[in-house]
Amino acid sequence: MTVAADVCVLGVGLIGGSLMRALGPERTFGWNRSAPNAEAATAAGFDVTTDLPSTLRRAAEADALVVVGVPLPALDAVLDAVAEHAPTVALTDVISVKGPVLDAVRRRGLHARFVGGHPMAGTAHSGWNATDPDLFRGATWFVAADDDADPDTWGRVARLALDGGARVISATSADHDTAVARISHLGHVLAEALALAGGRGGDLALALAAGSFRDGTRVAGTAPDLVRAICEPNRDALLPVLDECLADLGAARAALAEQGTLGALVDDGNHARHAYENAQATRAGGDTRPLEVTPGTAGWLEALREAGAAGREVKPVG
Amino acid sequence: MTVAADVCVLGVGLIGGSLMRALGPERTFGWNRSAPNAEAATAAGFDVTTDLPSTLRRAAEADALVVVGVPLPALDAVLDAVAEHAPTVALTDVISVKGPVLDAVRRRGLHARFVGGHPMAGTAHSGWNATDPDLFRGATWFVAADDDADPDTWGRVARLALDGGARVISATSADHDTAVARISHLGHVLAEALALAGGRGGDLALALAAGSFRDGTRVAGTAPDLVRAICEPNRDALLPVLDECLADLGAARAALAEQGTLGALVDDGNHARHAYENAQATRAGGDTRPLEVTPGTAGWLEALREAGAAGREVKPVG
Repeated sequence: MTVAADVCVLGVGLIGGSLMRALGPERTFGWNRSAPNAEAATAAGFDVTTDLPSTLRRAAEADALVVVGVPLPALDAVLDAVAEHAPTVALTDVISVKGPVLDAVRRRGLHARFVGGHPMAGTAHSGWNATDPDLFRGATWFVAADDDADPDTWGRVARLALDGGARVISATSADHDTAVARISHLGHVLAEALALAGGRGGDLALALAAGSFRDGTRVAGTAPDLVRAICEPNRDALLPVLDECLADLGAARAALAEQGTLGALVDDGNHARHAYENAQATRAGGDTRPLEVTPGTAGWLEALREAGAAGREVKPVG
Repeated sequence: MTVAADVCVLGVGLIGGSLMRALGPERTFGWNRSAPNAEAATAAGFDVTTDLPSTLRRAAEADALVVVGVPLPALDAVLDAVAEHAPTVALTDVISVKGPVLDAVRRRGLHARFVGGHPMAGTAHSGWNATDPDLFRGATWFVAADDDADPDTWGRVARLALDGGARVISATSADHDTAVARISHLGHVLAEALALAGGRGGDLALALAAGSFRDGTRVAGTAPDLVRAICEPNRDALLPVLDECLADLGAARAALAEQGTLGALVDDGNHARHAYENAQATRAGGDTRPLEVTPGTAGWLEALREAGAAGREVKPVG
């Protein structure tokens, strides 16, 4: 007896391809624009073509969940094809910013069965050859809880994340974008600035650099085009976070110049780092059970958002 | 036959104590202000007292190299005692900033046989119980090449670093302080700012935080008093580096707001990170032999500084 493939992955690069491998070839089929990635996936036993219309028609017929795994610059073309060939399909994505994706989906009237997603996992590498069936194991997979979200699609996306080995955190797309501006995109910007400052010190500075420089500049090793593709689409959320950070740094600079101390920044930063470490320890300790939510019941979106604001994992039931 | 102890360590905390353990009890004796650390060292087989005058007189009689291992706030009191009880002894230190130490030494007329040092190693812990005989293995130990440096003392300090398992990089104290502002102190400030920005995002942001936030905020986990004690004495070198970084971040902010791109920062930061990785790889590959320098020969200080500017290790001979 064969299992009907219920997940259609568009773009089998690092994230989309790893998702296929995590779920296995029986549950998945897909499409990739470039032939080499599609051929590599096919050689690995997966059903991946370069024919987008036929892939989408198959998804519509099977009522498969369509996962958009292309980078943001390729999103419009893929959504145009979805609107043409599978306009009522259940739809999600794995792109690192959520507001701009939601806007693009709404513009095409595809939002009735759309629930955005974002697995917080990745490496500096890309393409099918970088895929890993365990990429999502233990990672957090954000699943959007926006107004009017379709309960059935939300449940399917959340189960997809759980089947991939991830834990689910839910909130609005807007809250997601502000949060990742804080914990990911700002970190990219500061890592580049620290690397640049060290590099300006020449070979002497680089010879004296130890572990704190290595760790603080690690993500500056990511390809510049990828860093820009991750951070720049989140411009609206990143700008106020950057401004806040510039104000914090300016205050520390003034305190150092005028009173010889870095002021409150050091205490506040240390306090925040401990809060992060405690959150990690609580999660690793498994002390908190996921909040079980039945999509579509009264107050379900509010319950998801409340859990997300508390950093609590959620799980679909029913 | 007994070996005469030739290294006197003042302050047997993490760095001073680890140095004693790296060299062994036959070559070292020392002093510590607080009794518990001195007792812990004694229990481990080391000759450590709480009597500073007698320790310094012994150092003067044995012509031992005196290593000042106390934190900067305790430096003045220790140097006052050196000036009183062992004013002509060979002297070095392991404090993380070099200009202020050199000034304090000069004010007491102790500079004729002083050569500053700074092992680029440490942990978030302190005290004798945190010591590790392998703390310096593979680390870089900065040895100052300031004007009028005593050749004999420079050679003794460099050999001390090599005996501890470290590699020696040399430059002026001023160049050291600018370099560590870039590759260490700025990194502390940015890690605190990133942690603070993440913490302001509350539990949702901390739940979404992944590897880049963990690595980028690691040093914000260091005790605030220790961060201040490391960074604030280097105020004069840190302020211009902070200003330069604020200008870089401000330019990236403006480019993002006006053109939707982070601009040159991403390319420049990536370029600098690769330069750092290449420097690390060259060092790990052992491709470059240390420059051998005979202290006191014509142009020896210039040779040391030139090697340091190129990030090249040096080694005393003769």
